[in-house]
Amino acid sequence: MHNKTAKSNNKRNLRLILEYDGSGYAGWQRLNNTKGKRSIQSVLEDCISGYLGEDINVIGSGRTDAGVHALGQVANFYCTSGISAEDMKKEINTLLPEDIKVIDLIETDGEFHSRYSAKAKTYEYRISVSDVKPVFTRKYTLHVTESLDTDSMEKAAAYLTGTLDFKAFSTDRKDGKSTVRTIKNIKIYKVENARYKKNLEEVRIAITGDGFLYNMVRIITGTLIEVGQGKRKPEDVLNILKGKDRQLAGKTVNPEGLFLLEVRY
Amino acid sequence: MHNKTAKSNNKRNLRLILEYDGSGYAGWQRLNNTKGKRSIQSVLEDCISGYLGEDINVIGSGRTDAGVHALGQVANFYCTSGISAEDMKKEINTLLPEDIKVIDLIETDGEFHSRYSAKAKTYEYRISVSDVKPVFTRKYTLHVTESLDTDSMEKAAAYLTGTLDFKAFSTDRKDGKSTVRTIKNIKIYKVENARYKKNLEEVRIAITGDGFLYNMVRIITGTLIEVGQGKRKPEDVLNILKGKDRQLAGKTVNPEGLFLLEVRY
Repeated sequence: MHNKTAKSNNKRNLRLILEYDGSGYAGWQRLNNTKGKRSIQSVLEDCISGYLGEDINVIGSGRTDAGVHALGQVANFYCTSGISAEDMKKEINTLLPEDIKVIDLIETDGEFHSRYSAKAKTYEYRISVSDVKPVFTRKYTLHVTESLDTDSMEKAAAYLTGTLDFKAFSTDRKDGKSTVRTIKNIKIYKVENARYKKNLEEVRIAITGDGFLYNMVRIITGTLIEVGQGKRKPEDVLNILKGKDRQLAGKTVNPEGLFLLEVRY
Repeated sequence: MHNKTAKSNNKRNLRLILEYDGSGYAGWQRLNNTKGKRSIQSVLEDCISGYLGEDINVIGSGRTDAGVHALGQVANFYCTSGISAEDMKKEINTLLPEDIKVIDLIETDGEFHSRYSAKAKTYEYRISVSDVKPVFTRKYTLHVTESLDTDSMEKAAAYLTGTLDFKAFSTDRKDGKSTVRTIKNIKIYKVENARYKKNLEEVRIAITGDGFLYNMVRIITGTLIEVGQGKRKPEDVLNILKGKDRQLAGKTVNPEGLFLLEVRY
């Protein structure tokens, strides 16, 4: 359907890679403009529409929740303008606020649709582990005070990899749709940030899947953190999967450490 | 004089290591509360005074300008409270805003004065080099679009190392005081930050000295950037030093990439 529209219009189809700090926004979706906060989509659409002088609809690869960041969100839009992609990228970045930037803007074919063409996505949670909450990554990491046993977390993560029913790891939308998804990979690794005369440990959980249920990444991360803190055993994850009950899984953690890293096509 | 006051009062002397994001503040000094922004010092003093129920004067190792950050600012204060340093650190951090944190709080002797006892300081400028301004380090790096030749910058930096008259590299306060200072070391190095399918280069200039004139770090950095961009030769620095004229040196760059890293005693 989307292809038909694009082709029949004979419009150019432009593909964007976006970097944004979600802290100040109500999430990706235009309809989410709430509590005095705007959405990423509406800022982009207003900016590009104003610049090109035509009504622009920016299609994202998917919605990111309020407060969630992106290093590689993908979007596309159709337009009639003859301005080169290079000039467009430069000018749009001048007009955008400092917390949303276009990293790449390229001409693509009419078939490409950032949402329907997506094959896999990688989300990453960044968790800072320290007695005192870090100042400089306070908006870009989830903060925990107790150290995390990443070996146990990796064991638990292995049980979550594959094509499985993730019903227990999602906020049920009661729409009767399938809750089976494929997680291709969960990578857990550490980075060290600088702090005065010591290092500030950051544990990162990168989850790649073909699609995610509502709150799935946040609930998986909440559960893996509890495993890392020794509050649950890695094997518990198997029972949570089997039980298919949201109450069995861990907390839905806050959005501030969550990044959409990459969308694959 | 300060020692006498402390000793005669028989008060405890507590030493702090502070991490702060200067973006939202009018600088370190209490008197600087301006334009609707508060100072770091006044936030600390109000917070600690309120907590301990006594009038607390927080002495910093030196003033940081509006917008300048710290990873290792040192301060001390005298108090009569009997609360343990450990409990004090925990409670003060709970009361402080998210952009100012106490990394260390230890008991020290009455002789210690964070400003008068300081032997050397290290400031670091962080400069992001990219066509599109980075979103996540937008408040923590100075942004330039042209690449920097760090070899040339290192040559220029070598000429600035030693005990020299830095008059040309300061905003003259016309107070007739000596403009001779000792720069012990200038270290220039690169780090790579992640960006979608490419790296985002960050050049860092760490300057260690026994003291700095007004705007000295910002003018040295502005000059080194011009050398790195090929707008000046490394040897030009020698003529700037000789000329002792502010007009000869480079720009006073913006404060957003500047960090006080460490104070040595």
